[in-house]
Amino acid sequence: MSKVYCDMAMSLDGYAAGPHQSKDNPFGENIFDRLLRWRFEEADQHTTVVDKITDAGAFIMGRNMFGPDRGDWDLDWTGWWGDNPPYHAPVFVLAHRTRPSITMEGGTVFHFVTDGIHAALEQARAVAGDRDVSIAGGAHTANQYLAAGLIDELRLHIAPIVVGHGERLLADVGSIDLTPLDVHGTKLVTHITYRVNR
Amino acid sequence: MSKVYCDMAMSLDGYAAGPHQSKDNPFGENIFDRLLRWRFEEADQHTTVVDKITDAGAFIMGRNMFGPDRGDWDLDWTGWWGDNPPYHAPVFVLAHRTRPSITMEGGTVFHFVTDGIHAALEQARAVAGDRDVSIAGGAHTANQYLAAGLIDELRLHIAPIVVGHGERLLADVGSIDLTPLDVHGTKLVTHITYRVNR
Repeated sequence: MSKVYCDMAMSLDGYAAGPHQSKDNPFGENIFDRLLRWRFEEADQHTTVVDKITDAGAFIMGRNMFGPDRGDWDLDWTGWWGDNPPYHAPVFVLAHRTRPSITMEGGTVFHFVTDGIHAALEQARAVAGDRDVSIAGGAHTANQYLAAGLIDELRLHIAPIVVGHGERLLADVGSIDLTPLDVHGTKLVTHITYRVNR
Repeated sequence: MSKVYCDMAMSLDGYAAGPHQSKDNPFGENIFDRLLRWRFEEADQHTTVVDKITDAGAFIMGRNMFGPDRGDWDLDWTGWWGDNPPYHAPVFVLAHRTRPSITMEGGTVFHFVTDGIHAALEQARAVAGDRDVSIAGGAHTANQYLAAGLIDELRLHIAPIVVGHGERLLADVGSIDLTPLDVHGTKLVTHITYRVNR
């Protein structure tokens, strides 16, 4: 059966992004490199993990993960994912204002949903069919879906760093019980796949 | 060479104790059972991990972990560890007011140190000799030693729960880089041993 999964990189103290996120620093200051060293320095050791991150039939992301939130849309801006984003499937962006969908190279199409997380998930499920739906982030979006009990599998990629401030994953999501399904890692990251129990 | 290690159980969102800690609820409300299910329900699967927790030549703990903080000492109260505490070695309790040392069954002797974390560590190292020193908790004490850069090895026992409030481990400790040395677990806990990098 298809499921809703969510991959998030976080520091050991629970931060998924630093403070002062901007167009030039989507992960905020002073955290991106430290959070994702494993992606760059150990790329060949994590290919299975990385492939699974984008193995969904549809994706949902927050507006800040698509592009910066600065009031009206800049329609020339197509997000920070480049011409050929890694999703290769429909991506539903949670937004306060709508804009026309954007078809990118490689099969990624950004759709803008203004009527909330449940509506976005309904649309994503419809296009994903038998395939999984991924909650792609950022932390605020993941937290909203966790709080609503809509995530089946949470895959954490825990960087061995303590950062002390920024945007916290697992904040304001209530009390949740999970079950670890798989744990493995390297010197730069610990991957833990959790089933979220109902 | 002997090292300073620290074992802490924490929730996935970083809490080591619940709110409203008291003499009857040293871990605070509604968290003890959830945080330590692995200790009770899977005891035979974690004997090596548990043995290592108390394999030190001396221990340091916060006053709240020895006994409740309620102003003056109740000299009839010998802490919540029973007649034969699991330490079997000197335990230095960080306290604001001193009291005479207490010799328990099985080799545990509680000493009360009022001149701070560095002095306590110095005394613990002196009696531990070639053996390790353990920072036994709670979270506030572990955080103080982490912030001061005095812990060599941090061993986290991460329960697959999100609790949302209580006393947070890794809070106010600054920016820290660690290296995972060992990762393994069961359905009720993930054990990660980290070296704390200087």
